[in-house]
Amino acid sequence: MSQQASIEELVSFRRDLHRHPEPAWREFYTTARIVDELETRDLDALYVGPEILDADERMAVPDDDELSTWFERAREAGARADILDRLAGGYTGALAVLERGEGPTVALRVDIDALPITESDDDDHVPAAEGFRSETEGFMHACGHDAHATIGLGVLDAVANSDFQGTFKVFFQPSEELVAGAKAVAESGHLDDVDYLLAVHVGLDHPTGEVVCGVDGFLAVSHFRAEFAGAPAHAGAKPEAGNNANLAAAAATQNLYGISRHSDGATRVNVGLMGGGTATNIIAEESFIEGEVRGETTELMEYMEDRAHTVIESAAAMYDCDVEITVEGKAPSARSDDALATIVGDVSDRVDDVSPVLRSDELGGSEDATYLMQRVQDNGGLASYVVVGTDHPGGHHTRTFDVDEETIRLAIDVLSGSVNRIAADKP
Amino acid sequence: MSQQASIEELVSFRRDLHRHPEPAWREFYTTARIVDELETRDLDALYVGPEILDADERMAVPDDDELSTWFERAREAGARADILDRLAGGYTGALAVLERGEGPTVALRVDIDALPITESDDDDHVPAAEGFRSETEGFMHACGHDAHATIGLGVLDAVANSDFQGTFKVFFQPSEELVAGAKAVAESGHLDDVDYLLAVHVGLDHPTGEVVCGVDGFLAVSHFRAEFAGAPAHAGAKPEAGNNANLAAAAATQNLYGISRHSDGATRVNVGLMGGGTATNIIAEESFIEGEVRGETTELMEYMEDRAHTVIESAAAMYDCDVEITVEGKAPSARSDDALATIVGDVSDRVDDVSPVLRSDELGGSEDATYLMQRVQDNGGLASYVVVGTDHPGGHHTRTFDVDEETIRLAIDVLSGSVNRIAADKP
Amino acid sequence: MSQQASIEELVSFRRDLHRHPEPAWREFYTTARIVDELETRDLDALYVGPEILDADERMAVPDDDELSTWFERAREAGARADILDRLAGGYTGALAVLERGEGPTVALRVDIDALPITESDDDDHVPAAEGFRSETEGFMHACGHDAHATIGLGVLDAVANSDFQGTFKVFFQPSEELVAGAKAVAESGHLDDVDYLLAVHVGLDHPTGEVVCGVDGFLAVSHFRAEFAGAPAHAGAKPEAGNNANLAAAAATQNLYGISRHSDGATRVNVGLMGGGTATNIIAEESFIEGEVRGETTELMEYMEDRAHTVIESAAAMYDCDVEITVEGKAPSARSDDALATIVGDVSDRVDDVSPVLRSDELGGSEDATYLMQRVQDNGGLASYVVVGTDHPGGHHTRTFDVDEETIRLAIDVLSGSVNRIAADKP
Amino acid sequence: MSQQASIEELVSFRRDLHRHPEPAWREFYTTARIVDELETRDLDALYVGPEILDADERMAVPDDDELSTWFERAREAGARADILDRLAGGYTGALAVLERGEGPTVALRVDIDALPITESDDDDHVPAAEGFRSETEGFMHACGHDAHATIGLGVLDAVANSDFQGTFKVFFQPSEELVAGAKAVAESGHLDDVDYLLAVHVGLDHPTGEVVCGVDGFLAVSHFRAEFAGAPAHAGAKPEAGNNANLAAAAATQNLYGISRHSDGATRVNVGLMGGGTATNIIAEESFIEGEVRGETTELMEYMEDRAHTVIESAAAMYDCDVEITVEGKAPSARSDDALATIVGDVSDRVDDVSPVLRSDELGGSEDATYLMQRVQDNGGLASYVVVGTDHPGGHHTRTFDVDEETIRLAIDVLSGSVNRIAADKP
Repeated sequence: MSQQASIEELVSFRRDLHRHPEPAWREFYTTARIVDELETRDLDALYVGPEILDADERMAVPDDDELSTWFERAREAGARADILDRLAGGYTGALAVLERGEGPTVALRVDIDALPITESDDDDHVPAAEGFRSETEGFMHACGHDAHATIGLGVLDAVANSDFQGTFKVFFQPSEELVAGAKAVAESGHLDDVDYLLAVHVGLDHPTGEVVCGVDGFLAVSHFRAEFAGAPAHAGAKPEAGNNANLAAAAATQNLYGISRHSDGATRVNVGLMGGGTATNIIAEESFIEGEVRGETTELMEYMEDRAHTVIESAAAMYDCDVEITVEGKAPSARSDDALATIVGDVSDRVDDVSPVLRSDELGGSEDATYLMQRVQDNGGLASYVVVGTDHPGGHHTRTFDVDEETIRLAIDVLSGSVNRIAADKP
Repeated sequence: MSQQASIEELVSFRRDLHRHPEPAWREFYTTARIVDELETRDLDALYVGPEILDADERMAVPDDDELSTWFERAREAGARADILDRLAGGYTGALAVLERGEGPTVALRVDIDALPITESDDDDHVPAAEGFRSETEGFMHACGHDAHATIGLGVLDAVANSDFQGTFKVFFQPSEELVAGAKAVAESGHLDDVDYLLAVHVGLDHPTGEVVCGVDGFLAVSHFRAEFAGAPAHAGAKPEAGNNANLAAAAATQNLYGISRHSDGATRVNVGLMGGGTATNIIAEESFIEGEVRGETTELMEYMEDRAHTVIESAAAMYDCDVEITVEGKAPSARSDDALATIVGDVSDRVDDVSPVLRSDELGGSEDATYLMQRVQDNGGLASYVVVGTDHPGGHHTRTFDVDEETIRLAIDVLSGSVNRIAADKP
Repeated sequence: MSQQASIEELVSFRRDLHRHPEPAWREFYTTARIVDELETRDLDALYVGPEILDADERMAVPDDDELSTWFERAREAGARADILDRLAGGYTGALAVLERGEGPTVALRVDIDALPITESDDDDHVPAAEGFRSETEGFMHACGHDAHATIGLGVLDAVANSDFQGTFKVFFQPSEELVAGAKAVAESGHLDDVDYLLAVHVGLDHPTGEVVCGVDGFLAVSHFRAEFAGAPAHAGAKPEAGNNANLAAAAATQNLYGISRHSDGATRVNVGLMGGGTATNIIAEESFIEGEVRGETTELMEYMEDRAHTVIESAAAMYDCDVEITVEGKAPSARSDDALATIVGDVSDRVDDVSPVLRSDELGGSEDATYLMQRVQDNGGLASYVVVGTDHPGGHHTRTFDVDEETIRLAIDVLSGSVNRIAADKP
Repeated sequence: MSQQASIEELVSFRRDLHRHPEPAWREFYTTARIVDELETRDLDALYVGPEILDADERMAVPDDDELSTWFERAREAGARADILDRLAGGYTGALAVLERGEGPTVALRVDIDALPITESDDDDHVPAAEGFRSETEGFMHACGHDAHATIGLGVLDAVANSDFQGTFKVFFQPSEELVAGAKAVAESGHLDDVDYLLAVHVGLDHPTGEVVCGVDGFLAVSHFRAEFAGAPAHAGAKPEAGNNANLAAAAATQNLYGISRHSDGATRVNVGLMGGGTATNIIAEESFIEGEVRGETTELMEYMEDRAHTVIESAAAMYDCDVEITVEGKAPSARSDDALATIVGDVSDRVDDVSPVLRSDELGGSEDATYLMQRVQDNGGLASYVVVGTDHPGGHHTRTFDVDEETIRLAIDVLSGSVNRIAADKP
């Protein structure tokens, strides 16, 4: 790829990533490919893996076996060994920096991870028809992060080749799908000098051509995993000797839903996963639940989180079990800044084939870009979360999801135009 | 009544008690009438109310208002004021002692309290037809303790007028229905010199003429009351401000049944009573559950009790409520001694109109006579729980329960005969 | 009282009602006093009790004993027997109608019932200090409905003595506190020709002088009572014979909170009251829960209600119990119409001592005036719910609640002025 | 192996089976090896796989993939292909028949399946030390069924070479560990002419030399699996669209423990396994619980089973889920016949190195031999369950379990002696 990638090159790059979907903290091939491209650019700084992450803040990191499996898979798929070595232990992601004289520091955040979903092989599913379907069965870029990474590269080139004055950073962030990666990036220090942050997502039920300049309505979220440890016993011969971890898990599940609704706004609770026990005739020694709480604000999420931990610990005590609760992912709420969204809107209005331009929308879900937005806003900067529409045949997180590749060009134009205008206007 | 009451006098006495049923710790009229009779006898000692009770061991004592209501009611019904004054504060029951030279100390225990059941006024219910139905609406001698008290008096007279050698004690014990009275009697010291104890119950589905010499299968029991205290809140406007005592009570109730069955024998758990809250739109500040656990042995009951307290406390913690657990009644398990039952059997075989004589039976319920039995047995003595059958039209604890008064005579013959034989044989 | 009651007369009337607080469907004295006053006016129509109620739509009507008790109490307090006779069976409330030529039909709704709260007897509680504290211990006008009824009378007089053109109706509605009365009024037909409806409430944390012209944010609500009927059994001797109504109630309670939150808006659920069982050693034959569900919209409330009924019925089935669910109160959501609120605002701005005038506020609770508002709006009319502030020492529904009687005058001026302006403007 | 296998040959055979442990319905290698041996004997009939099973009564049969995996594994381990072909579809087990003239029909039942337990590889674990540790990682003969099958062969040889008169059948029964195989054997018809049945188990905490002649105290058992099917939904964006299968499973679990204890005897309930859901942010579409109920009698087990199904179905209804309940295993209660146990006792008393001989013992667990015992007893025959003690270092169903091979000889002597005596005495 050249210093200024053509759209054809970018599409080809996206399809390469699409063939190699990798879930959270396992984006070895993906990161290696991105870094490989970035090294061909004339950058002022390039940070890789551990250099962009506060190691203590990574959440939901898989165990070594799992990491090794994906590491080897990336190597076999042809990822550069010298780059891979820098990512060992699940330190994925990268940061490209351009320094172009005096001016504000503007940042773009894209995410890069994939999902544990088996991709469709129907003939009318474009990746299947055109030969770039996932090569790792059971995993898929079903939320467009392959396009996001590609857009990040494209915007970098566009800004690099413009008369942008200031500093421009592109964050290729890992582990968004588990809301497990942004906090480690936010705490790395690389955000601390950022004056303006744009985050981008394609689709979200907006068709190709539509742009949303500033998304709100992020639900703050916290993912928990509770592992109950009791004592096993033969259920027929000695039932009283057991401390029943399955009952503790069931009691926790039921009573988590007993956490009161809140008059300050919307809250959520879900026990999405549960499992426990070894045999019908053994009182379960171990059981787990995994779930999440959300809130319309960070405070509401924390209200739910506090109460959830009380419920879980009490359920364990009820059945003389121990319990370990871990937070597996987390993201605060956030709001897009009007001043920044206005600039994105003005720029979008002048991009060919973009229409309509929507000022704002409610997400109604969670995204850990909010950690980055909050970090910038806490330091006095501005942030906005931008949606560039794309015709997607299946919904996000379904096996027939795909992006209209035309979106890549539109997103590059909207975002690189916005970066330039921000530097010019300093809103 | 004379020193040796006739059967007619005893029947009349029983009917007087039947007209004035009094529940646990409120047996003011009943105790006064018994003591009034006892004072006409030539006793070697007579202990009343507080003199037979360890005050700290009384359980489920009603509040002062409740005690006062019944105290006044007894006074209005004609109970002797001088005796009543000795019972103030709910110290009911009495103990009569005969000392007749050298010989073993033999004791008989009868109980005297009634139940909160409304007595039938049907024409075929004898107390209604013959004019001695309960005069206190809502309360009733529905378990025959009016007959028990009468039998106690009759046996005392019979032994007094026999050539019995030794010491004979008749315990008129309060508060059996709540298994709340025997422990205070057991801890009073009056049992400590008892070598042989007989307890008696009429009926229990055995017809008139049948005698069971030694009952086993007492389930140890513990009654608990748990009062949950949370925080109220308007359920529409501010639900998060509430600590929901009703939910704590519901969670406790559900999970009490999650206490494992035990391989050592039968256990039971029941939340018999529950109540809480003030209005549909207020999150309940207060809620309670009242129930019991049982075990085939005292150890099994204690296993259930320990676990129950853990469950209740954890349920409270789950909803940020406080909880106070009180034990409202308790009785251990016990077994009748063969040697004593054999004597009762031998005597019964020779009593006219008694047949058949059953060696043993399983109660399958609870009785706090077991505290007294255990006390005697722990001191090296022997104890047996004797059933004297009676034709009872309705079941125990139902509104049509009644006893066949012929049973009074048979019980006196069986028990006084046994007391004499015990003193003679010293088994 | 004269055709145009003075403020002194109105205050005296309010204090009379305050001394005789009556809860839902038991407003016998209250209605009789109102009707007594209304009969002295020159009305075009006066409807009493059953004439303003669709009998089938009354909810939460007490049993005959309870109704009789209050009926007699009203008679003893001096209520006119001829009026009382018209209210027999708990048909309370009244409707006064003025017909003053051509013009729109305007209505005012006030509510008249009291609460089961014991009134403060502190010296600094004005009703206690000035001798008009509740004479019925345990009941209290703790939400200002005594003032509401008085205001209704005052507005009627003011409009009657103005040059109002059209028809004016004042509804004295029973049973608001249980949201159990408005539906029967709404279905009576008397609302069907109403073009404009004002409902009024004093206080709600707004001080004397403050007026809110149009309240929104009513949560739709449904009160339920579920009575579980199982089978009793001795918990020790025969536990398997019981169908445990307490366990069914506990399971229902726990799982009602498992009804999912809704993405369309706020919902609520509360089991405010529960109770069941007869004794610790009996498996409960009967148990009940009483509670409510709410929704930000009527649809959301109905979603909760549907799910709640499923949960309750399933919990009963789980323990082989029967269950009867009754709806004890209900109110839809509603919105105040801007056009009407604007008129109230314009009028209020010119009333002496009124300031500030707030355009709108969120209630965050429930009110069955919404049934009447919805009825009028469904017929193409307009409705607004007006708050006239009052300094109240204690919160609503607390024992120290009281109203600043100055509010009565302000409310009459605001509301009668608005009625006249509505007739003039026909918004 | 010869017509009369030597102890060395039998030990070698047992070790071969031990190296190839196979769980329920997957005993392909095991059955093939047994049949291979049986074919070398002079039998009057030999039935294989489907010939001894009522196909409709097999429970907990694995799916085709699972069966194929084990089928291939058996082939690779060297099992005879011609025999394997007869077992396709999971029809395992065999029946050997000797017909020796006039006389009663006597049967011996041994079971042949292994467990999903990883065998110890410690040096002091004999199979590891002596090279016959499980070759299939994760599976193990941890309950001695390798010895049982060997004993079956040895007793067959011993009886064949005796002067036994009558018919002798040895059942090599599959799938005991899941109590899933005996019913299909019982319904096959091959038991219908059996007059006397012996079943055998080694160990059970009895040391080498000890024999228990007739075991009682079998708990009847029923294994259930309940699969809840709801509807998935995004837990943040659209929670109300989900029908929460995890909540249904949790409610079922909690309330299964609410099934009342029974006054007729011991019962058990356990939810041993649970699992559900796909992701923390998705409301679970599918969830399952797997567990068991037991009873001291078959009736008590059926009481628990009936109630359990009601609870599970109601929990599903509560959350608008469907549920499918399957019975995965089942066994009735049973009692050993005194007359038969007496013969075993008499014979055992004369076997060298056998001592002590216990008349009876309580199992306190479950065993599907009871189906076979019940079948024989229902037809007027006699049955007894015999334990031949063995020193076992680890407990049954643990990774260090092993048998003292000396037990094989003792068991053969005790059982073949008993078979001969039975035929002689016809008790």
